[in-house]
Amino acid sequence: YQITALPGDYIGPEIMAAGLRVLRAVTADQNFDYTVTEYPFGGAGIDAAGDPLPKETLAAAKASDAVLLAAIGGPKWDGAARTPETGLLEIRKALNLFANIRPTAISPVMQRYSPIKNEDPVDFVIVRELTSGIYFGTPRERTADYALDTMRYTASEIERVARVAFEMANRRHQHVTLVDKANVLATSKFWREVVGRVATQYPAVTLDYSYVDAAAMKIIANPAQFDVILTENLFGDILSDEAAQITGSLGTIPSMSSGANGPALYEPIHGSAPDIAGQGIANPFSMIKSVAMMLTNSFDRRDLAATINAAVDQSIATHIVTPDLGGSATTEEVTNAVIQSIQ
Amino acid sequence: YQITALPGDYIGPEIMAAGLRVLRAVTADQNFDYTVTEYPFGGAGIDAAGDPLPKETLAAAKASDAVLLAAIGGPKWDGAARTPETGLLEIRKALNLFANIRPTAISPVMQRYSPIKNEDPVDFVIVRELTSGIYFGTPRERTADYALDTMRYTASEIERVARVAFEMANRRHQHVTLVDKANVLATSKFWREVVGRVATQYPAVTLDYSYVDAAAMKIIANPAQFDVILTENLFGDILSDEAAQITGSLGTIPSMSSGANGPALYEPIHGSAPDIAGQGIANPFSMIKSVAMMLTNSFDRRDLAATINAAVDQSIATHIVTPDLGGSATTEEVTNAVIQSIQ
Ligand SMILES: CC(C)[C@H](C(=O)O)[C@@H](O)C(=O)O
Ligand SMILES: CC(C)[C@H](C(=O)O)[C@@H](O)C(=O)O
Repeated sequence: YQITALPGDYIGPEIMAAGLRVLRAVTADQNFDYTVTEYPFGGAGIDAAGDPLPKETLAAAKASDAVLLAAIGGPKWDGAARTPETGLLEIRKALNLFANIRPTAISPVMQRYSPIKNEDPVDFVIVRELTSGIYFGTPRERTADYALDTMRYTASEIERVARVAFEMANRRHQHVTLVDKANVLATSKFWREVVGRVATQYPAVTLDYSYVDAAAMKIIANPAQFDVILTENLFGDILSDEAAQITGSLGTIPSMSSGANGPALYEPIHGSAPDIAGQGIANPFSMIKSVAMMLTNSFDRRDLAATINAAVDQSIATHIVTPDLGGSATTEEVTNAVIQSIQ
Repeated sequence: YQITALPGDYIGPEIMAAGLRVLRAVTADQNFDYTVTEYPFGGAGIDAAGDPLPKETLAAAKASDAVLLAAIGGPKWDGAARTPETGLLEIRKALNLFANIRPTAISPVMQRYSPIKNEDPVDFVIVRELTSGIYFGTPRERTADYALDTMRYTASEIERVARVAFEMANRRHQHVTLVDKANVLATSKFWREVVGRVATQYPAVTLDYSYVDAAAMKIIANPAQFDVILTENLFGDILSDEAAQITGSLGTIPSMSSGANGPALYEPIHGSAPDIAGQGIANPFSMIKSVAMMLTNSFDRRDLAATINAAVDQSIATHIVTPDLGGSATTEEVTNAVIQSIQ
């Protein structure tokens, strides 16, 4: 297997190194052959090749079986004509990664980190459309007097991501909540129509609806009610960060972005944390769990993923964790603990 | 003074009655002369006059000094060609209510109701643009194959609401946070530009920025950091509901929507709660506090507003509250307690 690794910026390379060490450890003698090649991307792309998404990086990503991304961006490239974030939007589009999948769970061992009082077990997944909507809609204009953006969706763009959500619900608790603003937006009314059609093909799955403002409340008041949340790009951006926050442990959450065929991309949900970069204290769990998510979804190696996730839980249970989780371990010490537990 | 009251639907009339009783009590012998006239609006408008915003209702609202609105909408009018919510959007536009103001506070007495563990005193205000953006932008299209909405802002639309936020910050803690998605949207970049210009006229006020996804996290993780949040219509819709939720007491929060001149509109932030309508147990605090907000902002009677708010706090402190706040009092009992405390 060919894996493209994009370490990116600030803490990116630190956690990527941790993730790749764990990948090596868990695959040793496991009949899993792979090569990892690193390419510059984001700010590192600008520094190395004058562009956040250098041609070679994109070509390598396209040709590989999976892409691992750590984190990009930061103050160094704030004024750039093409920012690191532009590179992120472009690679999503170029690899046709239309479904962004983010697990949100509060397990008993993580309960203490959660900023909400809720004690019910929380375990849902957000399926966010990632390559359309107001992120990519045209026209987009800006003059001295006004500016405008366009939120646009075609039926097929909605259908394909809806199918991802229903397939996932089929494997989970058979419940999809479509989040929209159908009392105002034409696109949202259209989503309801198209998703309603897709739903008829999944009779075992219950489909319900929530306005985005109400969903923002429910995620705090009663997050245990959700199984799979399906939503468009912008709402997904906001709600998935809110959902991550209720776990209290942003540094532990992986994500997957996938398309119809071609490689999927796996990355932590957090940013490049310029404030703690270079200190060796970045939490590697989100990257390590991204590796696990890749093993499950791109390489059908649930066994290896389970080993990794158990090792991470073990490290949390024994409180070998970085300062963001109240511990005093370094990135390297945490990674060593995970690897030891794997071995 | 002429006050137009729009009781609306389901619990709307129940809490409106409570609010008006408190208004009568607090103004008795206080040299405050007013007439209240009630008009149908929302579902009640559809039932009475075939339209959620009947002509007479709008004319009366326009001609008055302030508008009190309770709550509208509900399953009864779900299939309506023109929904109650359409009426709400139209009255905002017709009265040019471009600034929606929502206080979010967690006082010591409310701490126990909050679903978040945070114990710092929270006290911020969201200033949401209310008559433009993707709510009203054209084109808006829907065919069998695609749909689109347009998020559009002119410089003057941004300027006038920004000024409301900066004036408010001047009277509070001199801190405005502009929430946007400037790493993606042209409208957001434009907001930063225009708001930056307005800021130069308020040198005592600190302006900072937050992306909307990050803001959705901060409202949970560290809401005490905010003083005044300024944001566009859709982001304001989502974040103000999220912010209300962290107080754990949606039933207590009033709001004001105001324009350049003409009457302002005051309303609870919650909906019409069809599930508890007719039982006499709706929490009247949000409506009562909307009355107080009206007295302060439309009639410059801070003294009367303070009397009302103290009476509400008293009722909470002695736990004479409705079931949503864990009490067993009815709407009428709570209202009686508030009035007694006023007298
Ligand atoms: C960096 C930014 C453009 C990006 C987005 O809004 O999609 C980020 O917030 C994310 O969620 O991955
Ligand atoms: C009912 C709906 C159209 C409205 C809005 O989105 O503005 C409501 O959510 C609000 O915030 O007042």
